[in-house]
Amino acid sequence: MSEHGKTPVTVLGLGAMGTALVEALLAAGHPVTAWNRTASRAEGVAAKGATVASTVTEALAANEIVIACLLDYDSVHEVLDPAAAGLAGRQLINLTNGTPGQAREMGAWAEELGADYLDGGIMAVPPMIGTPAAFIFYSGSGGVLGRARMALDTFGGVNYLGADPGLAPLYDLALLSGMYGNFIGVIQAYTLVGSAGVKASEFAPLLRGWMEAMNGFLDRSAEQIDSGDYTNDVVSNIAMQAAAFPNLAKAAAEQGVSAELLAPLQSLMDRRVAAGHGAEDLVGVIEILKK
Amino acid sequence: MSEHGKTPVTVLGLGAMGTALVEALLAAGHPVTAWNRTASRAEGVAAKGATVASTVTEALAANEIVIACLLDYDSVHEVLDPAAAGLAGRQLINLTNGTPGQAREMGAWAEELGADYLDGGIMAVPPMIGTPAAFIFYSGSGGVLGRARMALDTFGGVNYLGADPGLAPLYDLALLSGMYGNFIGVIQAYTLVGSAGVKASEFAPLLRGWMEAMNGFLDRSAEQIDSGDYTNDVVSNIAMQAAAFPNLAKAAAEQGVSAELLAPLQSLMDRRVAAGHGAEDLVGVIEILKK
Ligand SMILES: NC(=O)c1ccc[n+]([C@@H]2O[C@H](COP(=O)([O-])OP(=O)(O)OC[C@H]3O[C@@H](n4cnc5c(N)ncnc54)[C@H](OP(=O)(O)O)[C@@H]3O)[C@@H](O)[C@H]2O)c1
Ligand SMILES: NC(=O)c1ccc[n+]([C@@H]2O[C@H](COP(=O)([O-])OP(=O)(O)OC[C@H]3O[C@@H](n4cnc5c(N)ncnc54)[C@H](OP(=O)(O)O)[C@@H]3O)[C@@H](O)[C@H]2O)c1
Repeated sequence: MSEHGKTPVTVLGLGAMGTALVEALLAAGHPVTAWNRTASRAEGVAAKGATVASTVTEALAANEIVIACLLDYDSVHEVLDPAAAGLAGRQLINLTNGTPGQAREMGAWAEELGADYLDGGIMAVPPMIGTPAAFIFYSGSGGVLGRARMALDTFGGVNYLGADPGLAPLYDLALLSGMYGNFIGVIQAYTLVGSAGVKASEFAPLLRGWMEAMNGFLDRSAEQIDSGDYTNDVVSNIAMQAAAFPNLAKAAAEQGVSAELLAPLQSLMDRRVAAGHGAEDLVGVIEILKK
Repeated sequence: MSEHGKTPVTVLGLGAMGTALVEALLAAGHPVTAWNRTASRAEGVAAKGATVASTVTEALAANEIVIACLLDYDSVHEVLDPAAAGLAGRQLINLTNGTPGQAREMGAWAEELGADYLDGGIMAVPPMIGTPAAFIFYSGSGGVLGRARMALDTFGGVNYLGADPGLAPLYDLALLSGMYGNFIGVIQAYTLVGSAGVKASEFAPLLRGWMEAMNGFLDRSAEQIDSGDYTNDVVSNIAMQAAAFPNLAKAAAEQGVSAELLAPLQSLMDRRVAAGHGAEDLVGVIEILKK
């Protein structure tokens, strides 16, 4: 099924991301068969050389390698369930966002139907697909990855995490958590200085330098988490930090702005101190999050 | 009162931070008179050349420039109120952590007693004092800063923000908010991957690269905040993000860990979408925080 060493691929879903994936494949010369629920959305990729399938069954029959990039796992099931017989012998690569549990369920389901399953978490927005800035976490069948590798390389960096299909969504969501934490810090900082009439763009260089410096603690925190030893070395211990933390909410109240985003951290710190760990480092709160 | 161009300084408070400040001054050759409530804590700096005052009144009388570094603003008042007469003609520099409102109150109080007032927020832990990594926000009397400059330069970088004494604590707390947001993201990421048995130190390099990349959004967010125009350009709009956000909590629940730290952001996003801003960028949530 391969012409001139290229890898023919079926893509299910032509939303913003699915379209970007198809365009990257076509640009690299891989033959693409595409399907989308709303047929009109396939016109753009058809003009660029994709073959358009009019049914899911036809799309599955066209190629061994099948990439799904739909709204969520429910929509993947809605699309594949009625055409499930066509999955036998396929290499199913699901690049739809979901949870580790959903990925594990779908992997087991696909394997029962005779398909090999690879899950993926795309760490990029559509315009980044095909650039070196994009990378994708994969987990599940290493065989699928091997066979589809040339096609997958066109999207961006490949980061394979292991056989458990849940790992790709887990890593994806872990990085998203990091991103949202960064966002919480940045937006709260801009809110506070803005309350005194300071422009965000004036504060930005200072904040950027500071946030970069904060990333310096990542490695030490990791060591502490891995060893379970949260002994305080140089920085303020958690009891001191928990005692000073109310100033953040107090200052926000004085300035007439909200500090709601930081409230759960106060509660977490207080519980850790109450449990007798006041002399240790802040990072020990992870023991509560782990339950 | 100056010998060989050095600036004689009184320091009130010999906790971890006050001691570090005194040591930096002594190392640079500035004569120091020190006082601490618990007298025994002064022995170390006395051995290094500080003069120890036995009363606050004596400490205030010794030098025009007076630095206070105590637990909180209440303790500063406890220390200074009984000796308030001695503040006339002094240059009071308060490096105690507090809120903008507390700094403004203390500035007004000191000026009524005939003292000039400079507030400061120390962006460093004690071992960093006297190194290039330390910097201090100052706000309040620019005259005090000018007169004490040589002494203050021994602590680290000087960042003067203006005449409002509340600005130094405000900037201090804004950066701390940024730090705690960064912490929230990092600890949540480690919690999630740890739930699948992934070592934090294994995940750390990936997380660091990602968090560094996230700081790239700081400037664009600042532009949007300053203009009030939250038009979505390339990244997912807030409605899409609010719809995908429950996966973070769902994945945590599946893995048996907590996602409590991110809960208020979900609520904030939902309110912003409900207010009709779903097609805009996430950063528009600041409008709710500003109230
Ligand atoms: N956009 C990003 O920045 C980004 C980044 C990383 C990951 N992702 C993930 O990539 C996946 C696709 O995202 P996208 O940006 O392409 O979304 P999108 O533009 O909203 O497209 C959604 C796609 O899903 C299809 N779909 C939805 N419900 C369906 C159903 N019940 N049956 C059949 N098809 C259905 C839509 O078909 P119709 O055209 O017929 O509606 C469309 O093809 C999502 O899981 C998303 O989380 C997106
Ligand atoms: N340590 C840091 O990493 C750090 C970083 C930035 C800013 N700061 C700020 O610097 C200030 C001092 O911190 P620190 O680390 O030096 O704290 P610390 O080691 O706990 O020392 C507290 C100091 O305050 C004195 N004190 C407390 N209550 C008092 C009262 N009612 N009357 C008189 N003296 C009183 C203590 O005197 P006794 O010895 O008699 O108890 C001691 O000198 C705080 O506002 C802190 O937030 C600290």
